[in-house]
Amino acid sequence: MVLLNKCLIAILVFFSSPLIFAQDTSAVSDEMFRINNTWMMVATFLVFIMHLGFAGLESGFTRAKNAVNILFKNVSILCIGILAYALVGFNLMYPGDQFAGSFFGFAGFGIGAGSAGLTSAYNEGYTYYTDFLFQAMFAATAATIISGAVAERIKMGSFMLFATLYVALAYPIVGMWKWGGGWLQELGFHDFAGSTIVHGVGGWGALVAAWMLGPRLGKFIDGKPRPIAGHSLPLAFIGAFLLWLGWFGFNGGSVLSADPGAVSLVLVTTNLAAAAGALGALVVSYLASKTYDLGMVLNGVLGGLVAITAGADVIGPTGSVIVGLAGGALVVLSMLAIDRMGIDDPVGAVSVHLVCGVWGTLAVGIFGKADPAVLGYSLSFTNQLIGVAACGVFCAIVSFVFLTAVKMIAGLRVDQEEELHGLDAAEHGIEAYSGLPFSAPN
Amino acid sequence: MVLLNKCLIAILVFFSSPLIFAQDTSAVSDEMFRINNTWMMVATFLVFIMHLGFAGLESGFTRAKNAVNILFKNVSILCIGILAYALVGFNLMYPGDQFAGSFFGFAGFGIGAGSAGLTSAYNEGYTYYTDFLFQAMFAATAATIISGAVAERIKMGSFMLFATLYVALAYPIVGMWKWGGGWLQELGFHDFAGSTIVHGVGGWGALVAAWMLGPRLGKFIDGKPRPIAGHSLPLAFIGAFLLWLGWFGFNGGSVLSADPGAVSLVLVTTNLAAAAGALGALVVSYLASKTYDLGMVLNGVLGGLVAITAGADVIGPTGSVIVGLAGGALVVLSMLAIDRMGIDDPVGAVSVHLVCGVWGTLAVGIFGKADPAVLGYSLSFTNQLIGVAACGVFCAIVSFVFLTAVKMIAGLRVDQEEELHGLDAAEHGIEAYSGLPFSAPN
Amino acid sequence: MVLLNKCLIAILVFFSSPLIFAQDTSAVSDEMFRINNTWMMVATFLVFIMHLGFAGLESGFTRAKNAVNILFKNVSILCIGILAYALVGFNLMYPGDQFAGSFFGFAGFGIGAGSAGLTSAYNEGYTYYTDFLFQAMFAATAATIISGAVAERIKMGSFMLFATLYVALAYPIVGMWKWGGGWLQELGFHDFAGSTIVHGVGGWGALVAAWMLGPRLGKFIDGKPRPIAGHSLPLAFIGAFLLWLGWFGFNGGSVLSADPGAVSLVLVTTNLAAAAGALGALVVSYLASKTYDLGMVLNGVLGGLVAITAGADVIGPTGSVIVGLAGGALVVLSMLAIDRMGIDDPVGAVSVHLVCGVWGTLAVGIFGKADPAVLGYSLSFTNQLIGVAACGVFCAIVSFVFLTAVKMIAGLRVDQEEELHGLDAAEHGIEAYSGLPFSAPN
Repeated sequence: MVLLNKCLIAILVFFSSPLIFAQDTSAVSDEMFRINNTWMMVATFLVFIMHLGFAGLESGFTRAKNAVNILFKNVSILCIGILAYALVGFNLMYPGDQFAGSFFGFAGFGIGAGSAGLTSAYNEGYTYYTDFLFQAMFAATAATIISGAVAERIKMGSFMLFATLYVALAYPIVGMWKWGGGWLQELGFHDFAGSTIVHGVGGWGALVAAWMLGPRLGKFIDGKPRPIAGHSLPLAFIGAFLLWLGWFGFNGGSVLSADPGAVSLVLVTTNLAAAAGALGALVVSYLASKTYDLGMVLNGVLGGLVAITAGADVIGPTGSVIVGLAGGALVVLSMLAIDRMGIDDPVGAVSVHLVCGVWGTLAVGIFGKADPAVLGYSLSFTNQLIGVAACGVFCAIVSFVFLTAVKMIAGLRVDQEEELHGLDAAEHGIEAYSGLPFSAPN
Repeated sequence: MVLLNKCLIAILVFFSSPLIFAQDTSAVSDEMFRINNTWMMVATFLVFIMHLGFAGLESGFTRAKNAVNILFKNVSILCIGILAYALVGFNLMYPGDQFAGSFFGFAGFGIGAGSAGLTSAYNEGYTYYTDFLFQAMFAATAATIISGAVAERIKMGSFMLFATLYVALAYPIVGMWKWGGGWLQELGFHDFAGSTIVHGVGGWGALVAAWMLGPRLGKFIDGKPRPIAGHSLPLAFIGAFLLWLGWFGFNGGSVLSADPGAVSLVLVTTNLAAAAGALGALVVSYLASKTYDLGMVLNGVLGGLVAITAGADVIGPTGSVIVGLAGGALVVLSMLAIDRMGIDDPVGAVSVHLVCGVWGTLAVGIFGKADPAVLGYSLSFTNQLIGVAACGVFCAIVSFVFLTAVKMIAGLRVDQEEELHGLDAAEHGIEAYSGLPFSAPN
Repeated sequence: MVLLNKCLIAILVFFSSPLIFAQDTSAVSDEMFRINNTWMMVATFLVFIMHLGFAGLESGFTRAKNAVNILFKNVSILCIGILAYALVGFNLMYPGDQFAGSFFGFAGFGIGAGSAGLTSAYNEGYTYYTDFLFQAMFAATAATIISGAVAERIKMGSFMLFATLYVALAYPIVGMWKWGGGWLQELGFHDFAGSTIVHGVGGWGALVAAWMLGPRLGKFIDGKPRPIAGHSLPLAFIGAFLLWLGWFGFNGGSVLSADPGAVSLVLVTTNLAAAAGALGALVVSYLASKTYDLGMVLNGVLGGLVAITAGADVIGPTGSVIVGLAGGALVVLSMLAIDRMGIDDPVGAVSVHLVCGVWGTLAVGIFGKADPAVLGYSLSFTNQLIGVAACGVFCAIVSFVFLTAVKMIAGLRVDQEEELHGLDAAEHGIEAYSGLPFSAPN
């Protein structure tokens, strides 16, 4: 019956004010806006839960004597990251019409929506506030990725300073190149949900930071890498599954509306790549070590997820299985290679996020199929390569500069005594498991 | 095309029965009702997950020897609370037209919807059953808040008896004052999602119960408080993050529809307050102890969340950061103060839920801005103060009476021997971590 | 305003092409399709999270020396199960028009939707891809149920081979009998979300496998069952709560649309049965052992959930409380009985999934009320019994045949030495909690 009212009102409006007819052709119904926004909010919650996933994965894969430190880093950088993104990041990444070039733009400090920001006049898929929140949850992941690679030896204050700068400045500038309408978008670089723009950005920061920090004490003996077992695989398992869950929002929300066909395809490719990533890592790690390696399988799931993230919307089910399988295999091979290079990445963050991020971004140029009229550009391997390289150069330099500055101001690494006894005792004055006799090497 | 049918049918109906036009002006489309109800169901799931969050937080912050006891309490009180709320609570809180004064009403025993309860004739935002379920998940939180404050020393049966009475009688009566259309609603007291109506009610019960029980053995030595470390900070961390996640439903669902502007604003203020709460607690606890205190930061997140709950809909982004910062700082200061008062609150429930609940409710009178025509009243500091005081007096008295009655019937506290060996051995005959040698003090 | 456009377009279309009017009467609006599909995606995520729930429950209820093994099994079988379901399972279960009898059908290998699969022409409730993903998450649960019953003694490769066959062939064939339009659907057997079709199928496999494997070393001494305590009740608690959460999607999603009345009723009956299941198990286990048994209460929640799954849509609130209470009580009694029969089911999978699955399916014939015109058949106790028996015979035989074949090829059980030292050392070369001195029996 309400439709009747609407029809009658609409007819009245039509005859009295023909201009409105033309103005509103792009708008969506209240219901459509509401369902889109609801989906985007659900996706936001799922991306939020990834931060718990990261915390579980990282602390589970490292030693009990540093668990409080890792948890503290992860909750703090999430909170500081959200506040920094509200203050400057969001407005650097989405400058809108205010001051925007192809490489840099800025829309002013702080957030706040006028009344239009709460309607579909802002966007048919979400309100201004939903937009901010979804993007803020994304932004904080870039810093959290780095957290894993620097675990068990970085100074708390130094990490927080670096991570805040990275989330507030480096991540949004690269993000603007693609998602804020900058030069990578103009070029025709395709990165659906951020294999490069998020995971590559985090992964480069992780690689540079792990290299600058040097390996943990005891990781290399006579130049040979030694495995340092994590203290709780159940905790890491919980973390990996929550990351998988969160990825449904990370990729599914990147459709930016609840479009049934687009979102459900993205969910299927995302999920198949995750499953195939596990299988790829299982097979390769079994061939390499003749054991069923749980850590590798969990990282294989994540490698498959990172890899499909760039092309989840333009790669079909079969392609996504191939992308995932290769991603899972790459994680295992990359972790062995990084160990041999003398770089210590306690949780495999570089292999998962950077290596699979590069693979997935390039895979768009191999397996991706899309209508250029819809995308606004043709998929091309060359453009994918340019995007990967540009982000790599920018992030590597910025990470190096930021970390060098932080090193000069406050130092990067805890002293040897603190590292041996664990950062929990030194920086937090508390144990993760009070009363439990974890043995010395852990 | 379906629209065409609807239009034609509507036009036929219009001409044949003009009365319907007037009758149905308040109704919403099927699509609108469906999206609203879906959002409310999602919010319900999120509030459900808070109960897992509470369980993780409480057991993680306490000792291994009592972990089974805490988990048992939390699952039991959730289940009994849901059943009790179905039997009487829901009908005390929302008496509807059946028998309702300003202070008390009752709609009869049990739940069950007529066919109208399944349509938007019941409410434009949700069905009768969604309404019940969302409210039932809320109700059980009030008891669970108390659970943390009485941990490690209360008798299982006594707690369950008290908690059941509190969820079935005390919580719904206070809730009716505001959300059931009672005298606080008529007065113009604003408490959007329950800083006072839920967290204050739980917090007062927690304070009275912790005071009546007395401190755990060994908490105070020569009158000085001694820290008793929790046995698993990763477990507490998981709990805190699940509570944060759940709060998106607690506050977001309290809009009572999927209204994009209202819900997304509420989510942003909720999230900013949580992040700011962590920062407030981080800074104040660092200043106080020169360590990075993970427990304080996690409680700071919760303090920020409790504080913004009353005004998440009427406070802007900047205001929510201030409310959250102060909430996080207050948690730290309050935990120190409560320790000095000789009251033992093992997980900081009183500081998080009562102190921040009072602060957040009063903050509505300071930072809140809303159109009186929409709310039905003007925001006023005085009204906020009246609401806080009224709930405090009622809940303190009811808690005292209920607990005194339970004490006389069954006693409140386990005997000294049981407390020393842990409640798990005494009441449950099992260890939380079979085979693990937790050391004596834990 | 967009409505005006639609109305005008529709009117034009109507007069120019009257045929379209007739064609589209069954279609739904874009908005309706979008909200339905969004709900089904949310439900899919919730079912996904059940796999984390199973992993937590199973590993928590068993010994630390086998925790990695259990986690490895659960992540691998989920991933392999998803891929196998994509390759053949989905097309066996939903053969559609391609080749379908009453007992068997097949629609070809692999998945992939034509453009109609992305619209409401496929189904008013979801796209082809959402359909696949929701069903794939369901399918993998059947194998995971078995995983718990065979824990701590089965060979990894043998389990994976058996589980893959079971998910890819046995589960979809039984599923097709009911949900693919086969003979049980034609008969009028009612199993809303799978008390028998999912939990019974998994439960029969669990019973046959546990019986064929024989008990763990030390489970029976002189023929008397000995309790073997799980190593982490907090982990099991997290698992049980995530299963409860996931069940909102398992049952709620089985409505196959976001219909507010139907879904919200299902959520309420599901939730009341869970709460009542806890209470039933609490009371019966307290009477039996005079302790508050956390494991029994958690399994009671699950028993209540399994029991209501068949009739969540046709049983009212009061009936669901009774079904749940009995389910919780049955779990306790069944676990005692299975112990006495000399069968070792480490986590109680048979009691929870098979016994409560049978009870719940039969309960539909006792408490269920529905309009035959809507369902397409009348609810009948006899038909429920036929469905239970048919699934039981088929699954028991298939399980026995598959397991016998796997036994001949690769053996089923690890050798005695491996079992004593734990499967983690033998098959995975790693400990779940590196550095922690779990004592010998665990």
